Amino acid sequence: MYPFSFHNPTRIEFGVDKERFMGAYMREYGAKRALIVYGSERVKQSGLFARVANGLREQGIEFIECGGIKSNPILSKVREAVQMAKDFKADSVLSIGGGSCLDSAKAIAAGACYSGDVWDFFKGTPIPQALMIFDVITLAATGSEMNWGAVITNEETRQKDSIHDRLLFPKVSVINPQLQATVSREYLVYSAADIIAHSIEAYFTAENRPQIIDGLVENNIKSVIQTTEKLLADPDDLDARGEFAWAATLALNGLTHLGIGKYQFPNHMLEHSMSAICDVPHGAGLSVLMPAWMHWYQAHNPQRFIRFAREVFALDSAEQGIQALRAWFDKIGTPTRLSQLNITDAQLEEIIENAAQTAKQRNLDVLYSKAAISDIFALTR
Amino acid sequence: MYPFSFHNPTRIEFGVDKERFMGAYMREYGAKRALIVYGSERVKQSGLFARVANGLREQGIEFIECGGIKSNPILSKVREAVQMAKDFKADSVLSIGGGSCLDSAKAIAAGACYSGDVWDFFKGTPIPQALMIFDVITLAATGSEMNWGAVITNEETRQKDSIHDRLLFPKVSVINPQLQATVSREYLVYSAADIIAHSIEAYFTAENRPQIIDGLVENNIKSVIQTTEKLLADPDDLDARGEFAWAATLALNGLTHLGIGKYQFPNHMLEHSMSAICDVPHGAGLSVLMPAWMHWYQAHNPQRFIRFAREVFALDSAEQGIQALRAWFDKIGTPTRLSQLNITDAQLEEIIENAAQTAKQRNLDVLYSKAAISDIFALTR
Repeated sequence: MYPFSFHNPTRIEFGVDKERFMGAYMREYGAKRALIVYGSERVKQSGLFARVANGLREQGIEFIECGGIKSNPILSKVREAVQMAKDFKADSVLSIGGGSCLDSAKAIAAGACYSGDVWDFFKGTPIPQALMIFDVITLAATGSEMNWGAVITNEETRQKDSIHDRLLFPKVSVINPQLQATVSREYLVYSAADIIAHSIEAYFTAENRPQIIDGLVENNIKSVIQTTEKLLADPDDLDARGEFAWAATLALNGLTHLGIGKYQFPNHMLEHSMSAICDVPHGAGLSVLMPAWMHWYQAHNPQRFIRFAREVFALDSAEQGIQALRAWFDKIGTPTRLSQLNITDAQLEEIIENAAQTAKQRNLDVLYSKAAISDIFALTR
Repeated sequence: MYPFSFHNPTRIEFGVDKERFMGAYMREYGAKRALIVYGSERVKQSGLFARVANGLREQGIEFIECGGIKSNPILSKVREAVQMAKDFKADSVLSIGGGSCLDSAKAIAAGACYSGDVWDFFKGTPIPQALMIFDVITLAATGSEMNWGAVITNEETRQKDSIHDRLLFPKVSVINPQLQATVSREYLVYSAADIIAHSIEAYFTAENRPQIIDGLVENNIKSVIQTTEKLLADPDDLDARGEFAWAATLALNGLTHLGIGKYQFPNHMLEHSMSAICDVPHGAGLSVLMPAWMHWYQAHNPQRFIRFAREVFALDSAEQGIQALRAWFDKIGTPTRLSQLNITDAQLEEIIENAAQTAKQRNLDVLYSKAAISDIFALTR
């Protein structure tokens, strides 16, 4: 194993009804004034918002609200909420929603302690301080509930970019699998694709692969495959819902990246360009890209693709493993071809250009030249 | 998955030479006056102590030392060190050694902030406060480097008992696999048995078994088996040493106990009586007990023993799985029969009596009556 530092201070409160205690958890950390961010009005109609808010009131925590955060969350909304947090003198941001909502909360928490523009952080300015972050996560996918990252789209420049900082670990994340039972079939399968993408990026690209880490990743992928199938058969299977949620958290809380040296996130890099230009659901973009990228990349790491085929699908060849993943995506109903995403040829050109620019900024353009990116997208047709 | 809380705040610094930076890590947490505890003089002869101490001096951290901590660490030594920490007005305890040393450090950290006797905590008195705990771990086995527990033997009453408290999580644990390369062949295989015991206790006894957790446990056991064999063939295999060390940490840092409901540690309960009465190495006691206990217990949970056989050893029946584990212990050279431990019949009587008392105190005597414990030990012959 290569050297590593691991320090994940997020506290997870997992279980039915735990959102009722969010006020008490926040109180333990000294929160007194919160900005609550959420997405659609469904969290109000369902009674979820009220259950959480009552818990805050019981603990004497004052709060204001900022709703309307969309998937592929945008910078203008973050800026608006940063101003609200500053005006309110909030000491904490509480997200009630999925990964988009929580990622916005993280950016807001950083922006609210900074006199400049929050986008500066996405261009490399260090984050000096951040409000405390809490969340009730309603969609298992991004893993944001137990990590230090956030992804935001700058809709003016059409850049989808990320920040990472120790200050952005949530203090407490509530995972109540029952809340996730209302997720649509569509978003369930997109989430499955997203979790698998989080699992395979480093698995295929890392310079070092300790077997103990490989086993964690493969276990996670197998868990996602099993539990997705159970949930498609019975959306109310609470055990499967819980395991699916925990697989999402484990896929990106740092444990699967320990001791592996350098690695890349190429599928995410390419997909971020897709959803920045066309606003496709992140998981749908990933399920289109992954089999194409795997096919294109396999020659760089052939033994690893053979291992993937064997351990995840009990198959013998690299190509069979890739085909099995695509077939599984088809089976569960997440897109595997660009044509399913209604992206025009003109938009595709723009996506390729955008991705090539990102690759250049990250010094990944030796491997991900514009021509290479075109080749990968050609394989998605 | 059953409800759970998970919050493991320990920072891991993993890699060759990381012990040199312990002073800097401690400084980050504000440590100024440390009690350093260690076991044998080997940590001085090897230069390890000096490397760590120099790092403390560079950061202006003052310290005193307390050496001579033995495996199966004893209360009288802890009491002596508690007094030293009080007299020195230490703000932190730094362990340079294995799990016994670190467990002592945890008990010392709690005792130094308490006017009564440290053994009170082992009898149920809540721990009000504790000094900061840091460690350089030189033997992978107990998992103490990333958990909140400590086990100490009261040599007067011949009780080996444990404390658990959030205050006992180390702030920073250094795992340098190279330091563990000097561990004797004997202690390597005892450690392997200990890690496997940590893995199987909850695996066989928990009321709920999410598959994602099962997979983590089985991956850990397989990793221990693989890396132990590599290390027996080549003690300098640093990759295997690192994975072995990380498997030890993962086996008992809480992750494999999430969502599983209630569970027991029967093999540890019985072994603690063995080493309290006879001072046998903990891992050696466990490798004798485990196959016997598994044989005795399997009827309580037959499907699980079949799964163990299949997933860990690719075998079909519960009995084959148990035999395979015993055979593997024999192969690596850790004892599997009571006769190998030089325990007299009189001592065995005492062990059984001691274990029966413990079972009673923990309300486990419905299953672990004195007769049942005798039956289990009979199977170790």
